[in-house]
Amino acid sequence: MIAEIIATGEEIRTGALADTNSACIAQELEGCGVEVTRLHGVGDDLHRLSALLKEVGGRADVCVVTGGLGPTVDDLSAEAAAEAAGVGLRLDPPALESIEAFFRARNRPMNPSIRKQAMLPEGADVLFNPVGTAPGFSLKVGGCLCLFLPGVPFEMKRMLADQVLPRIAALMGGRRDHRLIKTLSCFGLTESLTGERLAGLGAEFPGVRLGLRAKFPEIQVKLYASGADEDGVSQQLEKAAGGVRQRLGDIVFSDSGEPMEAAVGGLLRKRQATLAVAESCTGGLISHLLTEIAGSSDYFIFSAVTYANHAKTAVLGVSADTLLSCGAVHEDTAREMAAGVRRVSGATYGIATTGIAGPTGGSAVKPVGTVCIGLACEERTLGFRFHYTYDRRSMNKQMFAMKALDILRRELMALPHR
Amino acid sequence: MIAEIIATGEEIRTGALADTNSACIAQELEGCGVEVTRLHGVGDDLHRLSALLKEVGGRADVCVVTGGLGPTVDDLSAEAAAEAAGVGLRLDPPALESIEAFFRARNRPMNPSIRKQAMLPEGADVLFNPVGTAPGFSLKVGGCLCLFLPGVPFEMKRMLADQVLPRIAALMGGRRDHRLIKTLSCFGLTESLTGERLAGLGAEFPGVRLGLRAKFPEIQVKLYASGADEDGVSQQLEKAAGGVRQRLGDIVFSDSGEPMEAAVGGLLRKRQATLAVAESCTGGLISHLLTEIAGSSDYFIFSAVTYANHAKTAVLGVSADTLLSCGAVHEDTAREMAAGVRRVSGATYGIATTGIAGPTGGSAVKPVGTVCIGLACEERTLGFRFHYTYDRRSMNKQMFAMKALDILRRELMALPHR
Repeated sequence: MIAEIIATGEEIRTGALADTNSACIAQELEGCGVEVTRLHGVGDDLHRLSALLKEVGGRADVCVVTGGLGPTVDDLSAEAAAEAAGVGLRLDPPALESIEAFFRARNRPMNPSIRKQAMLPEGADVLFNPVGTAPGFSLKVGGCLCLFLPGVPFEMKRMLADQVLPRIAALMGGRRDHRLIKTLSCFGLTESLTGERLAGLGAEFPGVRLGLRAKFPEIQVKLYASGADEDGVSQQLEKAAGGVRQRLGDIVFSDSGEPMEAAVGGLLRKRQATLAVAESCTGGLISHLLTEIAGSSDYFIFSAVTYANHAKTAVLGVSADTLLSCGAVHEDTAREMAAGVRRVSGATYGIATTGIAGPTGGSAVKPVGTVCIGLACEERTLGFRFHYTYDRRSMNKQMFAMKALDILRRELMALPHR
Repeated sequence: MIAEIIATGEEIRTGALADTNSACIAQELEGCGVEVTRLHGVGDDLHRLSALLKEVGGRADVCVVTGGLGPTVDDLSAEAAAEAAGVGLRLDPPALESIEAFFRARNRPMNPSIRKQAMLPEGADVLFNPVGTAPGFSLKVGGCLCLFLPGVPFEMKRMLADQVLPRIAALMGGRRDHRLIKTLSCFGLTESLTGERLAGLGAEFPGVRLGLRAKFPEIQVKLYASGADEDGVSQQLEKAAGGVRQRLGDIVFSDSGEPMEAAVGGLLRKRQATLAVAESCTGGLISHLLTEIAGSSDYFIFSAVTYANHAKTAVLGVSADTLLSCGAVHEDTAREMAAGVRRVSGATYGIATTGIAGPTGGSAVKPVGTVCIGLACEERTLGFRFHYTYDRRSMNKQMFAMKALDILRRELMALPHR
């Protein structure tokens, strides 16, 4: 079964708003075994929208449309749908009743313009909206079942789950095809080198399609497979994932799509270990990432963002001699920062970053993009130096943070440091 | 002049990634006076992509395509373009030279698969990519100039500005219409309340179109106007912006589109003041935001992310009595954290957050979404408590961080605290 998705609205057409609804709908449809072939964005233009609906109606089995159901003159979806289907508009009593009930339940007066939302194409079925004032509707255009939803994301999501997916499941009957995706997250090789290591893998695992995606600063290897037997598809993907792991080795840090900070958090929890962080050039980003994970207070206890040198000395006990002789950006300073934050906090592990995120502050010896990373634990204290060549401060920060977390991951898994 | 935009990639088609590139391109094209009529998303499918290019080639004047220029087998844009234009692929020497130069400049070995990126359709002109390894290209398909860019957003943006917009300006010749957008960034009212305060403003400023956009956690008021006279359009927008400011007052924190952390940084620099932060529930996010701004080391000196209670006592000197009698989430604790981090660091201002970002850790008295914020300066130390009702941990963290920065902004501007 083939589906297309249409997002409507001037804010979509002009780019004032990035369309996130369509991605959400595509994921849900693909999850049901529907193949999404095209996404479309169009403005509030009656004839362009009705022409597009006719075009899709002649090609797809299902089309989900968002936006244009509101009470104002630029809300044109019902009119465009009627034009595409060659029918008129009529007042839909169940739609009107659902709108009136929404206002009654909230003790709010109903503005007369709201009645426009109950004008649906002849032959349409209303899709009730329990969380907003604009009902949706479904209508056949050509051979295609078109489902119209509001553009407000949380209303759209609720109606997609309650009203649209059950209708699509019914349409599919017994022909449900399971489309699964497996994501292996990697760090440590460029996208092209990752691709070279995986060359020819497709031939080894027929039926599994392989895609690479740079989700900076990680590289994701995505495996796609589909079939009627969900367990079979899942096993196929697991086997292919094994093949990917064999070729990529320890650069794969997760096979569930979880980010590096969650993988590291899981390892710390498994070892009942705690972590403290000393950040200079990453400016709080490592701590922010770690604390995005619910339950991170089980292992993350403290971070010192010591942007100024005197904070490195006062809070972390970095020696003034080291700062003077080596400078703030040095392996020895990073080691002392990591050891200091571990000592101050009593954590099992301490990690530290000090470097030059740019755009200024670089020199010939320590150019922008240089980062020194420290790691301290009971057994040892290590210092590393790396150099990256990104043009943007925020990318340098992200790469520095990822590298520091990966060094900790390698230590926790007893992998070689590189 | 009519333009369409195509985003390619399995991650776009399946919804694994929301397409933000197209919105960015649409804004820029509209800004040049080009009318964007349709946006498209398609997967890595050679025939679907070439068919779409042919379709657009028969309809639009310009088409910008993102994605599919990489070194791996699922990167199909050049092949699809060649098929749509009815030509073959050939090795493009300037493209190869630009790729080799990229690797030489970074002292990185060039792996063989990268050469694929220099295979362009016959008749194509290379578009150099100064920030990545995959060059783009332009090619006529039917009557339409198609411009192919990488899918990585920062590479796409750089090439859009350097390579695409000048070519479009040249195409338009003297027919250029200036389409300007002015953004006023607001914090402190919901989108609907902001909209109500601005009701009727459109009638006061004919020719200026007003749009509201929720860019969580801020609300952006966007003013659009266009015309042949750039200065006139700009003045029109400035007048309307004055009208917006009059109605919204001190909730407008920027009229240049800069984020809150840049606005606060600008105020600190103007006052030659410094800042230290004590973060509990925001987990490093405030520091991360502040240090995203280049030059923030001029005013930001230290942050302590004291996730564990003993870190609050040991590093910030929060009294054990306060923690025992009031708990970690309390106005008094926030005040002591702010005063402590200011004292430890010697900063002019200290701000602090302590709260419950969720999903667990809430109680009847202090539910998830509760945040206490402290502010310390020479004259006084203040504590505040707020409660938000977002479902997601990351949204709570963002809102808490934004509120703390807004409290500092109000203090720096001597605005009333609310």
